[in-house]
Amino acid sequence: MTPVAPPRGFPKREYQARLERAQRHMGAAGIDALLLTNEAEVRYFSGFHTPLWLSPTRPWFLVVPAAGRPIAVIPEIGAPLMHRTWLDDVRSWPAPRPEDDGVSLLADTLRDVRAATGRIGVLTGPETALRMPLDDYRRLLGLLPQAEVVDATSLVRALRMVKSEAELAKIGYICELASIAFDGVPALASVDRTLDRTFTAFKIALLQAGADDVPYLAGAAGPGGYGDVISPPDGRRLRRGDVVVLDAGAVYDGYFCDFDRNFAVGGAEDAARRAYDTLHRATQAGLDAARPGATCAEVHRAMRDVVVADGYACEAGERMGHGLGMQLTEWPSIRAGDRTVLSAGMALTLEPALAMAPGRCMVHEEVIVVRGGGARLLSRRAPRALPGA
Amino acid sequence: MTPVAPPRGFPKREYQARLERAQRHMGAAGIDALLLTNEAEVRYFSGFHTPLWLSPTRPWFLVVPAAGRPIAVIPEIGAPLMHRTWLDDVRSWPAPRPEDDGVSLLADTLRDVRAATGRIGVLTGPETALRMPLDDYRRLLGLLPQAEVVDATSLVRALRMVKSEAELAKIGYICELASIAFDGVPALASVDRTLDRTFTAFKIALLQAGADDVPYLAGAAGPGGYGDVISPPDGRRLRRGDVVVLDAGAVYDGYFCDFDRNFAVGGAEDAARRAYDTLHRATQAGLDAARPGATCAEVHRAMRDVVVADGYACEAGERMGHGLGMQLTEWPSIRAGDRTVLSAGMALTLEPALAMAPGRCMVHEEVIVVRGGGARLLSRRAPRALPGA
Repeated sequence: MTPVAPPRGFPKREYQARLERAQRHMGAAGIDALLLTNEAEVRYFSGFHTPLWLSPTRPWFLVVPAAGRPIAVIPEIGAPLMHRTWLDDVRSWPAPRPEDDGVSLLADTLRDVRAATGRIGVLTGPETALRMPLDDYRRLLGLLPQAEVVDATSLVRALRMVKSEAELAKIGYICELASIAFDGVPALASVDRTLDRTFTAFKIALLQAGADDVPYLAGAAGPGGYGDVISPPDGRRLRRGDVVVLDAGAVYDGYFCDFDRNFAVGGAEDAARRAYDTLHRATQAGLDAARPGATCAEVHRAMRDVVVADGYACEAGERMGHGLGMQLTEWPSIRAGDRTVLSAGMALTLEPALAMAPGRCMVHEEVIVVRGGGARLLSRRAPRALPGA
Repeated sequence: MTPVAPPRGFPKREYQARLERAQRHMGAAGIDALLLTNEAEVRYFSGFHTPLWLSPTRPWFLVVPAAGRPIAVIPEIGAPLMHRTWLDDVRSWPAPRPEDDGVSLLADTLRDVRAATGRIGVLTGPETALRMPLDDYRRLLGLLPQAEVVDATSLVRALRMVKSEAELAKIGYICELASIAFDGVPALASVDRTLDRTFTAFKIALLQAGADDVPYLAGAAGPGGYGDVISPPDGRRLRRGDVVVLDAGAVYDGYFCDFDRNFAVGGAEDAARRAYDTLHRATQAGLDAARPGATCAEVHRAMRDVVVADGYACEAGERMGHGLGMQLTEWPSIRAGDRTVLSAGMALTLEPALAMAPGRCMVHEEVIVVRGGGARLLSRRAPRALPGA
């Protein structure tokens, strides 16, 4: 039952469909061009895929005009690769060139698409950041004194939140690979093994299973629970009675999984078993609630109600899941204040957590896709009872 | 000869020394507080180390006052881990909270350190980006109408460019691990092996050798040379006569190596052997030139002169190396326009490249540290002649 890898990349029609949707929304919002600076958005519209985004040295720009294909304005080092995408207009400069790191070229490009006297959509809202030097952004605006910048966060969010079947196939595939790798954890996480070597062995298992990379792997171990789930592993040895959690963000063809698994080292204590059971039922409540038309807040409440009914502390403001795709975490958030309405094609994590005692918590996480008939799991469901390791 | 892993983390005196240097420069520049938003700077001053930076959902802030320890203003999810650093003032809010995602708390903190009516240093210059929503940044400035924002790029760059011995030990260690893993490539990169599986096998070898992660691995293969070195690997099979390059950015305890190795599959052709020889001598010229007091431009010229003297095309604007440390690429750039003066303790890559034909290039890369007596290699020197695979 080895899962079959979906093809890498996307057919051109996928990019055409993304562009058409974007331009329809842009028309409705009176936006003349989108100016995009981040990996996920540049890749969404172009297919440009490189690990070089890890280097902060160079800015990369994509201009999505009101009509016609996106235009890449990028460092020369990326031009050969960008020319292999579906774009036909690739403009480049020899970066880094601090005195003019693409700014004048970008201003010219925005003029060419008649956005210099119009409205330029930039991502300035929640969960965004402008990936270019702030001084260069000011210089750009100075070159375009008649342009009006408007926030395009909700526009781009609406597009990216709903995944295509081809995107879902990649997310589903990497979830399946991680599910297989998690099956092997009991053989890796034994008493006296150090946490960091356990994590490395798990990462190797994921790569051997077919993952391209494991950019995110966090977790912890502690007697009956753990303090947080965002630490890198250390050289601490696993002890009988520890609960160990591994939270894995692995990647296939640029798409993430993000879910965790808990294991009781040398057998589970009652308190850990009970907490696990509560979280398993909370996740089920989230699964049942995550139907098209429901809000994130409703899914949050469904999960939190289970946790609170079982007598656990669970802060109302706590996030219990999120979107995912080209990024480990994307909009929306499964939290009390998020009124985003779920629709078919959204990929989300359900991530209920509870505090068993001060500094001792447990977190569950699964990946789901919202379908017309309700949510389906993309990760293989965690075992009904806390597994031993 | 297994290399010994340096201890993880840093002693408190390292952070104290960093802070003292920063505050001395801040005093000279009349800066009342630094506002830092990126992983490398937050970790530099606090030691806060988590893979959660991969998630774009939450902003993280560190305020470095003119006197006293840095203050963390961070999402609650990070508070337990931040409390384990040397900081004693950790302020947090339940993020994500789009209506006020730390902005008012950050404004209060800047007021507390008397920067609200003074000068706040922010990284707005080359190779930086502000990691927070632009709308939130505007809101912050609106809450601090009397504050003046000044660019602190050169201040922070001057600090971070010169590494401590403890930092150099981590960079040297991961370079040593990568050198060992590169020794094994000829056994991995054989005729008919696909490029992506070759890369995965190399990544696994690096993890088995002791690397924490391999966040950057790019490369290519082609007959007698390759088109670019920033692509992710694909399913293409290696052929006799291919030159394959692997460019590895692996990490130990949050510090990068970054160097590549070339291999001729099934034996080298003359053109490839000659190009390799030129690049090997160019790297040597860079090594000889990289002495304290020399400029980046001089090191660049030393390497480029060798390439051009051998009759190869080599654009004058091309970058031939860069700083590295907590980031895969850091200031300065080894390029014609960079007048940065080298000093002892800088870790750099030397990365000469040449074009053998249109669309067919070769790139060498080594990691060095500048010492009082001249440059020393941190990567094991590439073989004198193009090795076979």
